[in-house]
Amino acid sequence: MIHSLPIIHKVEVPPKQTLLQEFEHNVKEIFFSDNPLSKFKNQNGSRKFVLCLHSVFPIFDWGRSYNLQTFRYDFIAGITIASLCIPQDIAYARLANLDPQYGLYTSFVTPLVYAFMGSSRHIAIGPVSVVSLLLGTMLTDEISDYKSHEYLRLAFTATFFAGITQLTLGVLRLGFLIDFISHAAIVGFMAGAAITIALRQLHGLLGIQGFTKKSDVVSVMRSVWSTMHHGWNWHTIVIGVACLVFLLVTKYIAKKKRKLFWLAAIAPMVSVILSTVFVYITRADKKGVLIVRPIKKGVNPISAGEIFFSGKYLGPGVRIGMVAGMVALTEAVAIGRTFAAIKDYSLDGNKEMLAMGTMNVIGSVTSCYVATGSFSRTAVNYMAGCKTVVSNIVMSITVLLTLILITPLFKYTPIVVLSSIIIVVVLGLVNIDVVILLWKIDKLDFVAFMGVFLGVIFKSADIGILIAVVLSFAKIILQVTRPRTVVLGMVTGTSVYRNIQQYPETTQIPGMLIIRVDSAIYFSNSNYIKERILRCLADEDAERTGSELPRIKYLIVEMSPVNDIDTGGIHAFQELCNSLQKREVQLVLSNPGPIVMEKLHASKLSDLIGEDKIFVSVADAVATFGIKGEEL
Amino acid sequence: MIHSLPIIHKVEVPPKQTLLQEFEHNVKEIFFSDNPLSKFKNQNGSRKFVLCLHSVFPIFDWGRSYNLQTFRYDFIAGITIASLCIPQDIAYARLANLDPQYGLYTSFVTPLVYAFMGSSRHIAIGPVSVVSLLLGTMLTDEISDYKSHEYLRLAFTATFFAGITQLTLGVLRLGFLIDFISHAAIVGFMAGAAITIALRQLHGLLGIQGFTKKSDVVSVMRSVWSTMHHGWNWHTIVIGVACLVFLLVTKYIAKKKRKLFWLAAIAPMVSVILSTVFVYITRADKKGVLIVRPIKKGVNPISAGEIFFSGKYLGPGVRIGMVAGMVALTEAVAIGRTFAAIKDYSLDGNKEMLAMGTMNVIGSVTSCYVATGSFSRTAVNYMAGCKTVVSNIVMSITVLLTLILITPLFKYTPIVVLSSIIIVVVLGLVNIDVVILLWKIDKLDFVAFMGVFLGVIFKSADIGILIAVVLSFAKIILQVTRPRTVVLGMVTGTSVYRNIQQYPETTQIPGMLIIRVDSAIYFSNSNYIKERILRCLADEDAERTGSELPRIKYLIVEMSPVNDIDTGGIHAFQELCNSLQKREVQLVLSNPGPIVMEKLHASKLSDLIGEDKIFVSVADAVATFGIKGEEL
Repeated sequence: MIHSLPIIHKVEVPPKQTLLQEFEHNVKEIFFSDNPLSKFKNQNGSRKFVLCLHSVFPIFDWGRSYNLQTFRYDFIAGITIASLCIPQDIAYARLANLDPQYGLYTSFVTPLVYAFMGSSRHIAIGPVSVVSLLLGTMLTDEISDYKSHEYLRLAFTATFFAGITQLTLGVLRLGFLIDFISHAAIVGFMAGAAITIALRQLHGLLGIQGFTKKSDVVSVMRSVWSTMHHGWNWHTIVIGVACLVFLLVTKYIAKKKRKLFWLAAIAPMVSVILSTVFVYITRADKKGVLIVRPIKKGVNPISAGEIFFSGKYLGPGVRIGMVAGMVALTEAVAIGRTFAAIKDYSLDGNKEMLAMGTMNVIGSVTSCYVATGSFSRTAVNYMAGCKTVVSNIVMSITVLLTLILITPLFKYTPIVVLSSIIIVVVLGLVNIDVVILLWKIDKLDFVAFMGVFLGVIFKSADIGILIAVVLSFAKIILQVTRPRTVVLGMVTGTSVYRNIQQYPETTQIPGMLIIRVDSAIYFSNSNYIKERILRCLADEDAERTGSELPRIKYLIVEMSPVNDIDTGGIHAFQELCNSLQKREVQLVLSNPGPIVMEKLHASKLSDLIGEDKIFVSVADAVATFGIKGEEL
Repeated sequence: MIHSLPIIHKVEVPPKQTLLQEFEHNVKEIFFSDNPLSKFKNQNGSRKFVLCLHSVFPIFDWGRSYNLQTFRYDFIAGITIASLCIPQDIAYARLANLDPQYGLYTSFVTPLVYAFMGSSRHIAIGPVSVVSLLLGTMLTDEISDYKSHEYLRLAFTATFFAGITQLTLGVLRLGFLIDFISHAAIVGFMAGAAITIALRQLHGLLGIQGFTKKSDVVSVMRSVWSTMHHGWNWHTIVIGVACLVFLLVTKYIAKKKRKLFWLAAIAPMVSVILSTVFVYITRADKKGVLIVRPIKKGVNPISAGEIFFSGKYLGPGVRIGMVAGMVALTEAVAIGRTFAAIKDYSLDGNKEMLAMGTMNVIGSVTSCYVATGSFSRTAVNYMAGCKTVVSNIVMSITVLLTLILITPLFKYTPIVVLSSIIIVVVLGLVNIDVVILLWKIDKLDFVAFMGVFLGVIFKSADIGILIAVVLSFAKIILQVTRPRTVVLGMVTGTSVYRNIQQYPETTQIPGMLIIRVDSAIYFSNSNYIKERILRCLADEDAERTGSELPRIKYLIVEMSPVNDIDTGGIHAFQELCNSLQKREVQLVLSNPGPIVMEKLHASKLSDLIGEDKIFVSVADAVATFGIKGEEL
């Protein structure tokens, strides 16, 4: 039974676009797919200026409706994340091989800048563990003496160029480039970095002096074992284990009772205070418990003159900056998106990059190093009920007060407590459930995860990034070269045609083969698609010759999913037509889209195929060419 | 009127594959998509060996049914292409800055090897203009003194590694990599190389001594103008113009009357003979007409010891070899495919690479340089009626006889005749019609063409290749990051849903928005697709609020073209679900494929969406959720 439709529709060729229209359309699709200028339409000059201001500095937009009620929430959230960030800042600066005050400097300036320009409401800005580790590794590769002034200058240089990289991406609207690192690769990088960081903390936790500078697991573990009998300090270990237990227990409680989240948030600060007091009273530092270098008191000094704009460190500075800037951006965007999705507001990726870039450039001239959104603090910020980015301002001011007033009090803070804090934070970055899900959903994603993960822990963070990029590209290449083609059959009694492998109850039409191509047909896959179709035809023909079904006379190609075809694709279709002619099979097209129709016409391929062989639907084609009167 | 279907079909989850099955399937799709082992199935051991032999050396397969009748055709074709290739060989060797005999050596050994291993029936193997130019440029960049023995050794080294590159691609079944250079880029490269080569021939044509070694248009033209008043040799110009006119006229005649194609084929040989005799008689060489360096008599010497396997030239040799090998392969495969399509036989890309690789490796140890399929000679071979690759053997033997017997006769051949021959051949590589078609069909392709073309003529061939690769990748990246999403409407009176922009007569269903996603959903585009869908929903909602249509309550995503989804895509869908829930819109899926269904289940996303919201077709979904009893 052939389902014959009342009217056979004709596929029209769309009106030809002018070159300018086409160009405009392409540029818009590629760079302005989010239509950022739509709100500027039909506005007068001064209004446009205001909107433009709002767009660059969102604070002027939401700031007008800001009130005391909202501020109460933001204040509490801000104080909470400040108490979390101060110990983290000191600890992370050590990961980057910088003096502790640089972590605090970064937590003062960058959140302020972000508050004016950023569009995420929940993100908490400041130094983060992964970027600190990356920076530390890459900077030490260039200048191994991390106590030298050159090292600090290179750090500022890298920060400056990280900001420039982010600004450039934002201005050129190339934000989509960060989508090229696959989710799996990011998870792998995070997990690898977390474990690397945690293992490196063993030297703090065990009180080992003269630890290896390498970050790979093998070197670290060798360093740990080799010092086992003489290098471990038992006083340190006791303090460390006590801190660890305290932090883990509060974290566990906070996880069980979400109302008690503040317990986990203030636990690091509490353990810093308690351990500092303990060391001060017992003078444990005389018994080999290492304490932090004295933290310089006072507000950020200007560092504009420190940046290398020439000389042999310019090149490394730019390179490290680009890598760190991209990684920082990836992390910030991932965080921003997660929370934007929870609260259903939209986040403009390109605008975020502008904010991040500006904040790092300003940071680099005010003694900050690369800052971005922090996973742990953002989550606390969200749970503490922050409403706007004002919580970042509150945090920034708290850090400022700390810098001015109480830094000398940190003098007796034992390093081991910082190590414990880092370990607990970074272990939160390893998410076993996500890894299991990767394995379950997509084996290729799991391979990418493992590749990056192993690269980071056995080699180094930058090698991990390289692996991430290569694997992500390999997947993209696979996607474009190996598109799917599916044989369709009719769902009995309807005019619906579906994949015969998925729906074995569908029936094939005698004398016809229906194939759907599920991709744009470009040079990269056109030849594969052509050969695939021909092979499929040969296989089906051989199969049907065995039974008593009639020979295939029509090859219907369902083109609905084919959104574009380029000259390579047209070429392949011409070759397909040639081959089919030799085999006395007619090529029939179903539902080519507007762009495809236009190109079929421009290339005269539609004449070769025949206008009467192009249909709106497979059902129409079958109704026209099907063997009438035969029961299926 | 809602089209209600008799039965609402359910989308089943396919049976779970084991890890091994999945792995096997993936490897097969990626590397063995042409199913090369199918014929080995159900065969016994000795038969398998024979089939394997046939597979590596196709000559043993078709050779058994070869007969005298076929040989007559091949013999005529072989003699014809030999008469064309001998002058070309001498000319092309000069493009590569090598002594003329190396061109002849290459035309003797490589076609023989190819004849045993290759599967194309029409291709004519030997040195070609573009690869010779590329090799000449890149080798001269490394060793500017092209008369030195090092230069020759580097040429052999590059040839060796070109062969190794081709072999590696073939063995690893990475043949699909050459599909990454777009058709447009190849056309641009060919045209640019042709014009560069043609312009460089002006120095031969005008009899200029001490010509620039650079290949870009600006340097060449400057060199030509600066020698205008004292460097041009009028005797040379007269001979050159006479040759050019003769060659162009015969070519024109051959084009008009395809039966006279042999006229164009033997014209180069005739002009070489006539001009040589002319120079010998008039002793025009004493009047400044340059003649070729004496060609060494005798068969190819062994050059295995000449190849650099260590030292400072190993690196450049490998690099040049890889580039030249890839370009040679691209050209050969393009030629092979064209003629395979005309005669409808299939060409195994990976097997071709093995043949090409073996032939160049053997070539490199027998004093040949990189050989591949020649456009001009293959066309002549085809028109001369060749049936098999035996015509290459005939050509090879003819070249051998030339080498042994008559090379001294070429002593008085003027260089200008070689220049004329080259100009006429390479101008055939510039195909204005194809360029116009590129412009008409795809503006992006045209941009790629122009980029590569301008890169080759204003900079150099290798820069052109770099541009080709970058532009091709840019296009692939665009394809995967910016997939199409289309709003569908119902073709009135049917259950067919089509793009409302293409078919304005379709109607939208009240309270529903139907969107088709035309691509696999991967990390690289998942976020874009999500945002695109949400923006589309917001736009449609705003539009419908104006009119009196009901608010959108159902978002139907037609998933037929979505052949795969990875963890990034699953993530994006979860975020989409969250956002839709806030907006009180139900997400409904139509016809997800088997792989997508499996992953929706593995990730539990199908529970979040609801099994009852997944349908086989849009029509089913509309029938279930549509506002019943309402007239559209």
